[in-house]
Amino acid sequence: MNANPLRIVFHGQNAAQFRPGMEALIGNRHQIETVDDDLSTDAAVEAFTRADVLIGIRLQVPMPPLHQLRLYHAPAAGTDAIDASLLPPGCSLCNCFGHEQAIAEYVFAALLIGHVPLAQADRDLRQQRWTYWAGAPGALRTELGSQTLGIIGLGHIGQTIAARARAFGMRVHGCNRSAGPADCVDQFWPLDQLDNFMASIDAVVVTLPLLPDTRSLVGARALAALAPHAVLINVGRGPVVDEQALYEALKSRRLNAAIIDTWYRYPSAGQTTAAPAHLDFASLDHVLMTPHMSGWTHGTVRRRQQTLADNIQRLAEGRPLLNLLRGPTPRSN
Amino acid sequence: MNANPLRIVFHGQNAAQFRPGMEALIGNRHQIETVDDDLSTDAAVEAFTRADVLIGIRLQVPMPPLHQLRLYHAPAAGTDAIDASLLPPGCSLCNCFGHEQAIAEYVFAALLIGHVPLAQADRDLRQQRWTYWAGAPGALRTELGSQTLGIIGLGHIGQTIAARARAFGMRVHGCNRSAGPADCVDQFWPLDQLDNFMASIDAVVVTLPLLPDTRSLVGARALAALAPHAVLINVGRGPVVDEQALYEALKSRRLNAAIIDTWYRYPSAGQTTAAPAHLDFASLDHVLMTPHMSGWTHGTVRRRQQTLADNIQRLAEGRPLLNLLRGPTPRSN
Repeated sequence: MNANPLRIVFHGQNAAQFRPGMEALIGNRHQIETVDDDLSTDAAVEAFTRADVLIGIRLQVPMPPLHQLRLYHAPAAGTDAIDASLLPPGCSLCNCFGHEQAIAEYVFAALLIGHVPLAQADRDLRQQRWTYWAGAPGALRTELGSQTLGIIGLGHIGQTIAARARAFGMRVHGCNRSAGPADCVDQFWPLDQLDNFMASIDAVVVTLPLLPDTRSLVGARALAALAPHAVLINVGRGPVVDEQALYEALKSRRLNAAIIDTWYRYPSAGQTTAAPAHLDFASLDHVLMTPHMSGWTHGTVRRRQQTLADNIQRLAEGRPLLNLLRGPTPRSN
Repeated sequence: MNANPLRIVFHGQNAAQFRPGMEALIGNRHQIETVDDDLSTDAAVEAFTRADVLIGIRLQVPMPPLHQLRLYHAPAAGTDAIDASLLPPGCSLCNCFGHEQAIAEYVFAALLIGHVPLAQADRDLRQQRWTYWAGAPGALRTELGSQTLGIIGLGHIGQTIAARARAFGMRVHGCNRSAGPADCVDQFWPLDQLDNFMASIDAVVVTLPLLPDTRSLVGARALAALAPHAVLINVGRGPVVDEQALYEALKSRRLNAAIIDTWYRYPSAGQTTAAPAHLDFASLDHVLMTPHMSGWTHGTVRRRQQTLADNIQRLAEGRPLLNLLRGPTPRSN
């Protein structure tokens, strides 16, 4: 198909990781450039302002104006750091998924390791102690597959976790604004029955994005409704779980354990170290703390590159875009 | 149904763990006793010799004769320590499965933890270092779902692992004497093509029992066929993988990593410590060593109790037994 070449600019360190190998996906017709986060050279500013397609995760005042941009594409799901009011009228805004498989692997690694004490068993057997030997008294372990998993949020991530949970034999309860695909969970609870949902499960995974009505959605009352043995996992956004309520539930041991990947504070640009919260979660030994890593795999990059490439082809050929968050106004095609 | 009460004896420490709660499954009509491994009292010997149903994992000379035994039931899959020639002619020999779900959880805990560096991430973030933060250069991790899993042995365990592997998006290759259920793997290799099978996969799980023709089945040539990044998991029986060949492949780093749950040496009765092999696997840091624990969960006990109860009911009612390894000769029913 005859399509116009585009000026494609990868903006910043995050976007740059999706650059290698793009020619193999979109051919050599397009002009591809990579510019740094700070647009620290005149050439970078020039490339930025003249881009047809910008790939990045941050667009904020006082970045240079975008005169002819037709597509701003986040290589990520979240677009909360992209000020859409800075996009010119003819520009579309799209995002990417493809992280749900990676996040599910993180979730099941964390859940399974709570049932299979591999590290302790290895330490002991290296000293010739057969601590968890089958048949020995007291050696029996618990089983993930015998449990009920609760999932808050039934989007890409929630559904992907649900499918793997069922493969392990788990019962799956979902809590969401809307029911999602009819058969993706065994039992569905609307958000206004969150406390009853929490009381029905052995482990809960929060997968929701941060929106005005999801902030602190999981608060003290919902946490108190969990069973004493329950574990909470947050791979959505930190503040969906109220920080103070989570800290106090853990500190008082009313909450058995938490696995937290999404946080309340993040390093600023250039910072190499930073506390991930206002409260001292690092003082608690029944929390597994990870640095917003759950979705970040080579597979995620590869799947998102495919989405970027598909949409660049679609734009060049005047076909409808995928994962469209905001279309052009007025329509440019 | 009108059925005769039976004298049921749980023999030894292992069997005793299947005793609690049996009345809830088989009712109160039967007489249930538990005796110690050594039959150290006259009462224990008496109960043993008069049993209708014996539940145990070890039957060897010079144990007392079993005059009226109708069913010897292992609460385990393996019956290699049960000398069937000691069973009276009218006696059936049965075994139990129900461990495959637990073993699959062990396998996926061990596989996933190789891709998701939870422990390191936790250690670092507690010191405010965001080592694996999404988007950071060098932070990308690998993904289990992008890989091909090889499974040697396509029985209960192999099929259960295959189903979970597919839920994670893995490609599954199987190597077995016979093909098993047609659709349980994506590609099947007969045992005489073991080396080609080994060359086709990223991780391999050995699930085979120890039989004359499986001993040292996985030897130096098969191990050498694995890719440099491959990992080997043994949850079948230790000697199915040749000890010397495995040790040398690991020692020379031709084999990237191994997760070993089934071993070459086990503690004798009464021993509290014992090396699990003749060679010094504990000196290798790229081996995860666990003490034959993979199948030992509360869920396994519950599922096996159900099999024991089903067969006791069937025996009492004269119906055909499940998991029959050896029937009565001549038929007693």
